[in-house]
Amino acid sequence: MQLQLSEIRIAGFGGQGVILSAIVLGKAASIYEGAFATMTQNFGPEARGGACSAQLLISGDPILYPYVTQPDIMVVMSQEAYSRFVPELKEGGTLIVEQDLVRVTDLPRQTKVYSCPATRLAEELGKRMVLNSVMVGFFTAVTKLLGADAVRRAVADSVPSNFRELNLKAFEKGYEYGVKSLAENPSSQELEHVSHVED
Amino acid sequence: MQLQLSEIRIAGFGGQGVILSAIVLGKAASIYEGAFATMTQNFGPEARGGACSAQLLISGDPILYPYVTQPDIMVVMSQEAYSRFVPELKEGGTLIVEQDLVRVTDLPRQTKVYSCPATRLAEELGKRMVLNSVMVGFFTAVTKLLGADAVRRAVADSVPSNFRELNLKAFEKGYEYGVKSLAENPSSQELEHVSHVED
Repeated sequence: MQLQLSEIRIAGFGGQGVILSAIVLGKAASIYEGAFATMTQNFGPEARGGACSAQLLISGDPILYPYVTQPDIMVVMSQEAYSRFVPELKEGGTLIVEQDLVRVTDLPRQTKVYSCPATRLAEELGKRMVLNSVMVGFFTAVTKLLGADAVRRAVADSVPSNFRELNLKAFEKGYEYGVKSLAENPSSQELEHVSHVED
Repeated sequence: MQLQLSEIRIAGFGGQGVILSAIVLGKAASIYEGAFATMTQNFGPEARGGACSAQLLISGDPILYPYVTQPDIMVVMSQEAYSRFVPELKEGGTLIVEQDLVRVTDLPRQTKVYSCPATRLAEELGKRMVLNSVMVGFFTAVTKLLGADAVRRAVADSVPSNFRELNLKAFEKGYEYGVKSLAENPSSQELEHVSHVED
């Protein structure tokens, strides 16, 4: 499989595992899919407010210019991140949100929206901190950008060994939720809580 | 203090805390010094070999182009990273190495070299894994790029709370070693184990 260049932004607040999610997806692409990935993190004024975001480029070819300009895919885990970054999403792009933390509004109709209650699913496993692995699993299922096994292996070798099993469970939970969402609602633009901007 | 643009590369192997070191320095610059920082990590073929490197830009002004081209400062924690990256170091640049893991050879005379037995110092604290905080402390002392207190605070809020105290001790150990190295040998190009290339 030759991966085409994909620009991804992951954003939320500190402690949600934004950077770790980007590292996991970057490793999955490069180490286990034989592709290339570059992760960029800005520490600017927004870092002082507790916001956190990472940019990830994934490509079948070496990446010469590593800066994300207009993301194809955005993973958003806080309302602040939503307001700040979603206007940059590419037309027809994919938006993945943490369902209970983000209210989706004013979105161009052609955006594909996928929504996952990752915090709740993580809490069912007893550890809210694995919400990022739930989101990574969900991302893997709905985008189909990377093989599930590649991402699973990247999760396994990116977390401390005593949390490996828990994070793999979290991955599966998110992945299954994503597979189910896709089956129930293949073009998930029609989520009830989404108010679309008139084109 | 207005920070001038500094390009930094940190490189070693997986598990040494390369990325965490870059995050700590980036946070210190942005959150505690009011400057800007951008961290970029490439996952390419080298990631498959266990090599790990991060690029960090620190600047008093917002950073428009985040890619490190020719680092001013390089922190190197493995021989492989040394061979691979040191040829890119800027003329007159600063090289910081893990003393027991890197043999420094074939270096232009004008390079400033600082050498720290970070693994050994970390082992004295009972945990080899804090070698990155030792290196960060050493970096802070010898480069004087960032205030020690800013970096200390960034260390404190970048590590899990149960390892905070240990990492702060590691930071102090590296910092003190750096202050002593500077005092004993202000221009540390003359390290015995360094063989310089004839200019």
